[in-house]
Amino acid sequence: MIQSFIKKGSFQDSVSLMLISKKLSNLEEVDEVSVMMGTPANKSLLVATGFWSDTFNQATPNDICVAIKTHDDASDAIDLIRSQLEEALKNIAQQQQGGSKLLKARRLATANRKLPDANLVLISIAGEYAAELAEQALDENKNVMIFSDNVSLEDEIRLKKSAAAKDLIVMGPDCGTAIIAGAPLAFSNVIPKGNIGVIGASGTGIQEVISQIALLNQGITQAIGLGGRDLSQAVGGISALTALTMLAADKQTQVITFISKPPAESVRIKVINAMKQIAKPIVALFLGSRIDKRQDDNIFFASTLDEAARLACLLAKVESAMSTLPSVDHQTIMGLYTGGTLASEAAMLLANQLNLLLSDNHDKGIMFDQQGHKIIDLGDDFYTVGRPHSMIDPSIREHAIAQLGEQTGVGVLLLDLVIGYGANANPAESIISGYNKAIAQRSSHHPLIAIATVTGSESDPQCRSKQIAALQSAGITVMDNLPEAILLATKLITPANKIDCLKPYPLLDHISVINAGLRSFAEDLQSSNIPVVHYQWAPIAGGNQKLAAILKKLN
Amino acid sequence: MIQSFIKKGSFQDSVSLMLISKKLSNLEEVDEVSVMMGTPANKSLLVATGFWSDTFNQATPNDICVAIKTHDDASDAIDLIRSQLEEALKNIAQQQQGGSKLLKARRLATANRKLPDANLVLISIAGEYAAELAEQALDENKNVMIFSDNVSLEDEIRLKKSAAAKDLIVMGPDCGTAIIAGAPLAFSNVIPKGNIGVIGASGTGIQEVISQIALLNQGITQAIGLGGRDLSQAVGGISALTALTMLAADKQTQVITFISKPPAESVRIKVINAMKQIAKPIVALFLGSRIDKRQDDNIFFASTLDEAARLACLLAKVESAMSTLPSVDHQTIMGLYTGGTLASEAAMLLANQLNLLLSDNHDKGIMFDQQGHKIIDLGDDFYTVGRPHSMIDPSIREHAIAQLGEQTGVGVLLLDLVIGYGANANPAESIISGYNKAIAQRSSHHPLIAIATVTGSESDPQCRSKQIAALQSAGITVMDNLPEAILLATKLITPANKIDCLKPYPLLDHISVINAGLRSFAEDLQSSNIPVVHYQWAPIAGGNQKLAAILKKLN
Repeated sequence: MIQSFIKKGSFQDSVSLMLISKKLSNLEEVDEVSVMMGTPANKSLLVATGFWSDTFNQATPNDICVAIKTHDDASDAIDLIRSQLEEALKNIAQQQQGGSKLLKARRLATANRKLPDANLVLISIAGEYAAELAEQALDENKNVMIFSDNVSLEDEIRLKKSAAAKDLIVMGPDCGTAIIAGAPLAFSNVIPKGNIGVIGASGTGIQEVISQIALLNQGITQAIGLGGRDLSQAVGGISALTALTMLAADKQTQVITFISKPPAESVRIKVINAMKQIAKPIVALFLGSRIDKRQDDNIFFASTLDEAARLACLLAKVESAMSTLPSVDHQTIMGLYTGGTLASEAAMLLANQLNLLLSDNHDKGIMFDQQGHKIIDLGDDFYTVGRPHSMIDPSIREHAIAQLGEQTGVGVLLLDLVIGYGANANPAESIISGYNKAIAQRSSHHPLIAIATVTGSESDPQCRSKQIAALQSAGITVMDNLPEAILLATKLITPANKIDCLKPYPLLDHISVINAGLRSFAEDLQSSNIPVVHYQWAPIAGGNQKLAAILKKLN
Repeated sequence: MIQSFIKKGSFQDSVSLMLISKKLSNLEEVDEVSVMMGTPANKSLLVATGFWSDTFNQATPNDICVAIKTHDDASDAIDLIRSQLEEALKNIAQQQQGGSKLLKARRLATANRKLPDANLVLISIAGEYAAELAEQALDENKNVMIFSDNVSLEDEIRLKKSAAAKDLIVMGPDCGTAIIAGAPLAFSNVIPKGNIGVIGASGTGIQEVISQIALLNQGITQAIGLGGRDLSQAVGGISALTALTMLAADKQTQVITFISKPPAESVRIKVINAMKQIAKPIVALFLGSRIDKRQDDNIFFASTLDEAARLACLLAKVESAMSTLPSVDHQTIMGLYTGGTLASEAAMLLANQLNLLLSDNHDKGIMFDQQGHKIIDLGDDFYTVGRPHSMIDPSIREHAIAQLGEQTGVGVLLLDLVIGYGANANPAESIISGYNKAIAQRSSHHPLIAIATVTGSESDPQCRSKQIAALQSAGITVMDNLPEAILLATKLITPANKIDCLKPYPLLDHISVINAGLRSFAEDLQSSNIPVVHYQWAPIAGGNQKLAAILKKLN
């Protein structure tokens, strides 16, 4: 049977009440206890779940409805639960008093006064009230993140259109995760700072990708949530397009990663076109859609979250290397390899990147020779007849590198460095010597950028990290593998798309939050040193929406 | 002009002499100096490179030919070089005396006596003599690695056929890299022990793949070299097939990685068929060939060295996890996820692996439901109406996990664990509690294997590694990402191919080497604690091949 009572005028957030429900349900004296605010949606739910009692007709959205299910007529259960509930509410009040001093406000206007630079309202109140609060926030030119679900599609479209017209963003509804200007918003993770900006229509999608990015020792700038319906035909990707513009303008973001389920076709075309306008590489994961080509212009398609993270990290390393190197637009690439297979793979990757054909003729170890770009295998018989392999005796390569001093058309030098038993005791030395000779002959107008990959392990006699450190201290860029090295080389010789002077979104540089709903979200922000005021939202006029509308008009 | 002299009866290996050439060429008094043994091939080379002098007609393959190029008639150059050469030879002799005590032999028979269990002869003598020595080694039932190049195709085919008939392998000619039973052979790297066996027709290809494997914190069992011509039509992949059989029988090898240029079509078919007979996953990289499908039976195709290493490591982790888990052949998989996107990706990957279709209907969060296998998103509205999301309140999943105790048809449980701000303070606790309840109801005949992935970072409040450690100590397997988890799950329910009791190759368990040619190869083996004797090979009968043939017949 169901016993019930109402606790009047004590608004609590849903998570607090659900934790109380769970605790009370564990008591031996009862089967199950449901504790909810008396909102219309919750009342329907109480009916649907068999917890309804006519007592609840009297409850407003500001009152707590308590329903107790017992299998026998345990008449003392109601007193027990009443006293346990009071104690639980007292505990919450005490917890909220103690600990960190959270700025609080009972009205939005007060919150605004306490945090005048607030530029985002984080909304996790009951869904039926979320749209109205979001609208108020937009009216005051604040961005909005709606964690709540149960917001109508019409409200979502209206809010997003209104935001876009003001260069603001609405993340959500049902947006579980965002990290903006270092602020953890709702479900989020502590990820190192980096150069990858993430946009996602899925909360755990964002969380998994940024976690994998952290595992790969890279980091992020921002993670912008959209809500699961943003890329539907009806919404048309309004927030996705805003988020792309935001990250396009964000100086710290060098690589963009975009995660969603497959968008509606018309939205997909819009989003892809917007992506192509951005002078940054973009990883796109449309989860579950077939990938026909892996790369389209500046867009790299991934098929799993794991792969999206890996591609983003590859691009992040390339972009980060690029930003420290001078421009060698329209110059050529020269690869001088000692390893035959390394030369052959480098040639294949270079041909792919430049959309050129590989030749089958490898005369004199020339693996690639097109439009001035060359990849040469100096381990070819042509170079080793009568002398040790260039992995043992690096003098032939040292000489070839030095000669690039005069070949000012060559802007990028690609190299391998192979260590291990049998190989030269210090291959870095000869590379550096050749490179120093070459650049000594070059003026600052004709830079020669050297990019090396290292084959061999940390335990090899020459030690991988020591060889890498030696190369780096001579100004040679070291990449982790050939795909990274070749992508960097081709990007260096390709003139960057003209970047329009994009209008920055101030939100990405500094965030200051009004939190309405789950108090723990405010506490997480505070513990991350983000300015926050907790708006102790409760339904206006006791949740009577008609009265509330009249009161609003009187304001 | 060219000045010249002969140093009689002093055989040195080619690397030593080339290093001497280089050092002498650096002297101010000369333009360039060439120092070579008087073999027929070297004599041709001296002609071709403009270093010929008629003096050299008198030289045998056991004599050193010295040619000095000067631009003026510096008549004292010859005396200078002569004395410098003597000093260099003395230095080599001293170096060879000092340091580690290398076992040495002047005849192959002596080498055999000094190292009776020798089972591999490593040959790096001049190419024109390599085949004969290799044949002697095979006659004595020893495996062979031929580092030397310039061995004829006919010799290669004959040697490999003769080896195959005796269950021996010939690696090479022109085989630069191998690591057998922990022995670094020729150009090789120091790589952690692991469960990946590598086969390669390319030296630096092997080196790069094993280096990347080490960077990904995995390790290798063996690296078997083939030589660049093994997969040609003419040779027909004789050593490739032997190497596959060797690794198929090698207990430590759980994953095979095969690297070569695209083989001749007939050889490709033969090799692929042989791979499919092996009850182990195989990564195949045919460098430069187009990949039509990524997976064919147990073969995973890679397109770069980097990707080959990554795939091998993924499979290595899966195989290594499998070998610690009980069999759940023909049982079903149940995925209980709290993250919607994680559930959705898990469903997609599972459908791919099992060759089943995904349904579009995701009623009650059921993302996949085919042939008894299910993936459920417990974050779906169906489960969260009226209660916090299961990432906050894990009780609904705990209950669902516990119920699997009775569902004995379920053999594998897939899980996510999401941490970070907003999420439950200790999700591992609830998973472990549910899992313990489930397995308490299972008998040892009905194991329930739990496989989790963790979303979140090391810096999150709950700490990634602590959550992982908690799961692992409860007997739950933790994989790094969803593709690994799903692959492991599907392999666990798939009965293993019957492995025939394969004849092991003793070489892979214990190696003992006779080294003929470059002395440094013997030193590297010795420093790695591999039994080795250095056979101080020199051309028989002063290099007169006719006389040598007669002498051989008289034996």
